[in-house]
Amino acid sequence: MARAGTLIESVMKDIESKIASRAYLPNTRLPSVRAQAKAMQVSISTVVEAYDRLVAEGCIVSRPGAGFYTSGPIAPLNLTHIGPKVAREIDPLWVSRESLESTAGSLMPGCGWLPSEWFYQSGIKRALRNLARTHSLDLTEYAPPKGSQAFRHFLQRRMLSHNIEVTAEQIMLTESGTHAIDLIGRFLLSPGDTVLVDDPCYFNFHALLKAHRVKIIGIPYTPTGPDLERFAQAIKDYNPRLYLTNSGVHNPTGAHLAPHVAHKLLTLAQASELVIVEDDIFADLETTRSPRLAALDGLDQVIEIGSFSKTVSASVRCGYIAAKQDWIEQLVDLKIATSFSGNRLDSEIVLQTLTDSGYRKHMEKLHHWLAKQRQSTTKKLINLGIQPWIQPKDGMFLWCQLPTGKNATQLARDCLSKGVVLAPGNVFSQSQNAHDYLRFNVAQCTDEKIFEVLAWALDQQI
Amino acid sequence: MARAGTLIESVMKDIESKIASRAYLPNTRLPSVRAQAKAMQVSISTVVEAYDRLVAEGCIVSRPGAGFYTSGPIAPLNLTHIGPKVAREIDPLWVSRESLESTAGSLMPGCGWLPSEWFYQSGIKRALRNLARTHSLDLTEYAPPKGSQAFRHFLQRRMLSHNIEVTAEQIMLTESGTHAIDLIGRFLLSPGDTVLVDDPCYFNFHALLKAHRVKIIGIPYTPTGPDLERFAQAIKDYNPRLYLTNSGVHNPTGAHLAPHVAHKLLTLAQASELVIVEDDIFADLETTRSPRLAALDGLDQVIEIGSFSKTVSASVRCGYIAAKQDWIEQLVDLKIATSFSGNRLDSEIVLQTLTDSGYRKHMEKLHHWLAKQRQSTTKKLINLGIQPWIQPKDGMFLWCQLPTGKNATQLARDCLSKGVVLAPGNVFSQSQNAHDYLRFNVAQCTDEKIFEVLAWALDQQI
Repeated sequence: MARAGTLIESVMKDIESKIASRAYLPNTRLPSVRAQAKAMQVSISTVVEAYDRLVAEGCIVSRPGAGFYTSGPIAPLNLTHIGPKVAREIDPLWVSRESLESTAGSLMPGCGWLPSEWFYQSGIKRALRNLARTHSLDLTEYAPPKGSQAFRHFLQRRMLSHNIEVTAEQIMLTESGTHAIDLIGRFLLSPGDTVLVDDPCYFNFHALLKAHRVKIIGIPYTPTGPDLERFAQAIKDYNPRLYLTNSGVHNPTGAHLAPHVAHKLLTLAQASELVIVEDDIFADLETTRSPRLAALDGLDQVIEIGSFSKTVSASVRCGYIAAKQDWIEQLVDLKIATSFSGNRLDSEIVLQTLTDSGYRKHMEKLHHWLAKQRQSTTKKLINLGIQPWIQPKDGMFLWCQLPTGKNATQLARDCLSKGVVLAPGNVFSQSQNAHDYLRFNVAQCTDEKIFEVLAWALDQQI
Repeated sequence: MARAGTLIESVMKDIESKIASRAYLPNTRLPSVRAQAKAMQVSISTVVEAYDRLVAEGCIVSRPGAGFYTSGPIAPLNLTHIGPKVAREIDPLWVSRESLESTAGSLMPGCGWLPSEWFYQSGIKRALRNLARTHSLDLTEYAPPKGSQAFRHFLQRRMLSHNIEVTAEQIMLTESGTHAIDLIGRFLLSPGDTVLVDDPCYFNFHALLKAHRVKIIGIPYTPTGPDLERFAQAIKDYNPRLYLTNSGVHNPTGAHLAPHVAHKLLTLAQASELVIVEDDIFADLETTRSPRLAALDGLDQVIEIGSFSKTVSASVRCGYIAAKQDWIEQLVDLKIATSFSGNRLDSEIVLQTLTDSGYRKHMEKLHHWLAKQRQSTTKKLINLGIQPWIQPKDGMFLWCQLPTGKNATQLARDCLSKGVVLAPGNVFSQSQNAHDYLRFNVAQCTDEKIFEVLAWALDQQI
């Protein structure tokens, strides 16, 4: 009897969590008792009892002759209820909050951005002073719907120089790179659609896609791009709507897409009407240019997005979307509806910083610092038995494997207790098979204490 | 035969448009042939033929034994397909784009913001100079998840002074007021839910709610708040999830919520678990404080949002949400997932401007200017036979009725041809019964040419 009680309760819990996560939408018919029993591998009487109790609780309603339905207004969307439960330390949202909340004292070798002093601060300050001097509409007025025309022309020239055919009218500014992807998701996706991501990929892609209530399929990432065989198979199996990826410097691996992989990938996508969102946020960190899907495709099925939070500032935010004309027009409507206008002051500060004569020089210095830091960090990690997956040519990331038997989540937990915030591999992995990987940001690895704490934490695990 | 062809095509068009607007979600079962025929009041054979042709076009699929289903990945979300078709000039998105795109030369008595020179520019400039001088993390680093602590404490004190019990932890900064409402919508709403708005209300509420694919019900607005009888009836009829309103200065009418209406409204909402989103964007334009639902309710079922785009700057953007603690924590997760971080520089500029010693003085001047402009604009409009619905105590808006027989949409069209952008009443009206109303912004009515063009355009209509 106790066991049956437990079983009924677990069926109830499962249904309640499906309602909370909106796997079951409000005012929607639940599976029949028979189907539910089969799906949950319990008896029909267990489901009957569970449904009855849920009706009594007001969680679902019985419509005579029509079956059981979820109730009207439902519990709020709870992101942590969506998708498989994971340990707190490898919940992407937890890692984001931990990094964003961290105080001045903590060390953050796992975080995804540059230290404050590595940014081109003098350029930003010059832009602020310029803006404080002029009587400018940029201080008070709403932005035009697509954002600053001067900025869009700048982006057009930049893309043309990368062989991406685009007009300024095909470009819309957004509040950030994440905002750009979010708008595209709202435009192209419906709940239940399938989206492909790289495995591993930037961890916030998982949280973002969860908010769109889509099915996420991870494609194993190789040193030259996604595994093409698995990519082709996933297209066949899931008929996905979107593929979301970084070209250029890949996050978290630091890999570059190889030209032959880019071509093959695009051919597969074009045969299936799969839309590709290419996130080019690390463009200015590249020293040698790798291929862009947007260039090969001509912005037909590929949408390019980007931002400047990795190179100009994470505080002064501005992103963009470049896509085919009729999509951009509809994205403008969606942007107006959901945020009315864009951030005019920020886009002006970012533009002035990017076009400041010192920006290019600063970038050259930054490339040099990063190369030096990649080298020295690699050496220190290898000394601890932590092995980079590849030796990236560019960027700030090292994707590293721990010595045999060591667990990254446990390591992250131990290091956090000593004020060191790590990024354990499974945060980046849809398949959760990166338990012995970590992402390091070499720009955040200048403090020797990081390696001391790492050595100590590795010793904690036998 | 020709007629049957037309009928079949119109059934097909109707279904296609429901798919485009996602009234029919992808991979979802269509109504049975019999149900569809009944709903559309056509014969069964017409629906059979329409379904067959849609299958041939690949728009829907037939699953033997299970009926007809919408296809997999569908056409992108098209906001202009959602809801009833309206004339271009009274499509809220069209009005927004027209106002946001308008060039320096055009006059905008219909737009919703202050002229650039009415803002506290010297305060903004001082903040920019301050920030340019200091080595500050505000220039380069991501914001903490809830946004600047100093700003949240400022907002807490402000709300406490308005008798709203709140802690700083119950406040989260957003990119703008619209962004605040959008996040709440994503948190609380599912497609198909019902949302109440005032009729008339701020026109972008319609566009925003369309993007959430909810059913919008307009409640007639009276000079003391929403019509309570209709409000109670709507709760009974639709079991709505949300009510979205302005307290303080109501947009577009300039009315104030009366205390007894506020109390009754809240009682009705509390009896039905209706959540109220109170948009307090015009707070600083009030000279005498009207009641706040958030104060009466104690932030239990009421969520307060606000921004500073009407009083500090529309270019430097910052909004906020104040709600009960567990909702805020979940809204933080949703914010991280969909925009990763907030705009740190802007929130610092807005905070410095708000706390600048000159801000209060500037507001007093602004109140004075607005009072003067309300008076003079009212006089000029009455001279043209255009009658304010009420004489508002505060704010920039006058909600005005045209002389008998005149049409606001036609007037807007004619005035636009002369470079004057109006805001015709039906943009604000869910029931579309404000065809002879216009919203005027007195702060944008200083140029005599506006009244000349209005007189001319009124004469065009016999």
